[in-house]
Amino acid sequence: MLFQMKRLVAGVDIDGAVTSFALVDEFGKIYAKGSFPTADHKEFKNYVVRIKESIEALSDSLTIPHTIAAVGIGAPNSNYYTGDIENAANLIWKGRLPLAQQLSSLFENKPVVVTNDANAAAIGEMIYGGAKGMKHFAVIRLGTGLGSGIVVGGNLLYGHDGFAGELGHTIVEKSKGRVCGCGRKGCLECYVSSKGVRNTALELLEKSSDPSKLRDIQANMLTSRDVAFAAKSGDAIAKKTFEMTGEYLGSALANLVAVVSPEAIFLCGGLANAGDLIMTPARRAMEKNILPLWKGKVKLAFSSLDYENAPILGAAALAIKEIEKKSVVVARRKVF
Amino acid sequence: MLFQMKRLVAGVDIDGAVTSFALVDEFGKIYAKGSFPTADHKEFKNYVVRIKESIEALSDSLTIPHTIAAVGIGAPNSNYYTGDIENAANLIWKGRLPLAQQLSSLFENKPVVVTNDANAAAIGEMIYGGAKGMKHFAVIRLGTGLGSGIVVGGNLLYGHDGFAGELGHTIVEKSKGRVCGCGRKGCLECYVSSKGVRNTALELLEKSSDPSKLRDIQANMLTSRDVAFAAKSGDAIAKKTFEMTGEYLGSALANLVAVVSPEAIFLCGGLANAGDLIMTPARRAMEKNILPLWKGKVKLAFSSLDYENAPILGAAALAIKEIEKKSVVVARRKVF
Repeated sequence: MLFQMKRLVAGVDIDGAVTSFALVDEFGKIYAKGSFPTADHKEFKNYVVRIKESIEALSDSLTIPHTIAAVGIGAPNSNYYTGDIENAANLIWKGRLPLAQQLSSLFENKPVVVTNDANAAAIGEMIYGGAKGMKHFAVIRLGTGLGSGIVVGGNLLYGHDGFAGELGHTIVEKSKGRVCGCGRKGCLECYVSSKGVRNTALELLEKSSDPSKLRDIQANMLTSRDVAFAAKSGDAIAKKTFEMTGEYLGSALANLVAVVSPEAIFLCGGLANAGDLIMTPARRAMEKNILPLWKGKVKLAFSSLDYENAPILGAAALAIKEIEKKSVVVARRKVF
Repeated sequence: MLFQMKRLVAGVDIDGAVTSFALVDEFGKIYAKGSFPTADHKEFKNYVVRIKESIEALSDSLTIPHTIAAVGIGAPNSNYYTGDIENAANLIWKGRLPLAQQLSSLFENKPVVVTNDANAAAIGEMIYGGAKGMKHFAVIRLGTGLGSGIVVGGNLLYGHDGFAGELGHTIVEKSKGRVCGCGRKGCLECYVSSKGVRNTALELLEKSSDPSKLRDIQANMLTSRDVAFAAKSGDAIAKKTFEMTGEYLGSALANLVAVVSPEAIFLCGGLANAGDLIMTPARRAMEKNILPLWKGKVKLAFSSLDYENAPILGAAALAIKEIEKKSVVVARRKVF
């Protein structure tokens, strides 16, 4: 019997608080994982060394023979084309951070690819989740903001400069829109995100004097989770909040379908845990606003990846996708 | 000297009134062209035979040795994936019309591809026009309606079912929107199209009692061309009409950029002939509403294809693109 070397990839998920990483195979099986606080290192260079050493330590801990073929990273404000993180508000290092290039050179030029968390979620869904075999779909990540990863013809839609897929920053309220973190007004993510849910609830509480459990919570302490909890127990204002949130989401998805015509749209991220509270009105609004030719034809579902591991699996999937791509390119080169 | 056979393609543009066709080379040079009334044939089968015979007659009229490698067709409600025209309101034949398949079999299985006019315009721009060498761009066709062709990674965005790129049917006025031909309310094309310009002008005329040359024209006879003509001569209501039209267009383009991040957007079609009247406010609104990271970076320009021949060149370009694709696929097959 031939000696069989297991081929794994490393998936790394970076956010302002925690850097998580794992060794994963092509079926989404996690062989080992770990994490450390992102802000442990004041120098970005040392942070990159820490990532490298963490992956090596995981690798050393495995008893099965294996190679690590590539590293995929999900990171805020990162650009697939350049491999850099650019001006990430939630990280302690400023400006342009050449993450992929630095990590790759520490790993003797192993392929290292980065993208933002919503894009990684989309690739994760394609390689490991409900979008297996799909060529055209979108993943909407509902967290503090609203991120989107759009897959077209089996490839992530990065656009001309690597920044495509900013559905959260399409303007949906032209007049009197809420002020967005991007400096403009009326962006979708001001309404459909944990922040958006919070603000909608506060607005509804202010506009009416109806009783609500939410009035027992100090305004600056109110979270989207509180609103979901109250809605599940029947609180009218909390329920109305989710109705409005879903309505905004569904209308935006109907417009997205008109442009990219996906087979399916998957919702993930913290706010997706609200379940039917968000899905029911979102589906209703999408179907109401969609062009007749797509009525009843576009699947709207939750991500099938396990919530806790989804970001790491997305990053690992990015690495796997990259290896697949490279092998096609090599094959092409042989021909021409 | 070796005998050199010129490789041409046939481009066919179908609309409710006229079917135009031409033989074109890879540089956009038209070798011969012709047309006939689309409604000449009550039977769709006979219509397809007429297309075939028309192309052959053009071919016979050429004195240079040549082959016709493929046929590209721009047709309303047509589907690239299936090759069919489906339920086209402006054609006399109803239901599903297997255009590509029937024409291909008449031509001994020569490649025949169809798509709608906006998609053909996008491919035309890529092969012959201002988008040469671009991988990510969009073409907006402003005619009776608003069509869009979006190119992603060098390929047209057809989506899951072939119907992607319906920017004209994204809803931009959620409440009190104008009724659209699609049965819904507030679609972009109700505002940004020759029909939209006409309706905006009529609304403005009704709302105010300011003097306007447009009041001399009977309401049901008013056209977008009249409005453009009046605006150019300084008519305030006509100018306001184009300001509003451009504002709608520019805001929608800013949202489109957030999703697909194109390098450039090209405007074509009859209403694009209004020139600066539409371009100036559209550019202003796009820049005002675009995410900061794209400010000043996305080119907005008119199509560089000659207006009269653009639809035929788009159809011819579709055929050329198809030949290129097939040669890549054949090359791939040899490898795996």
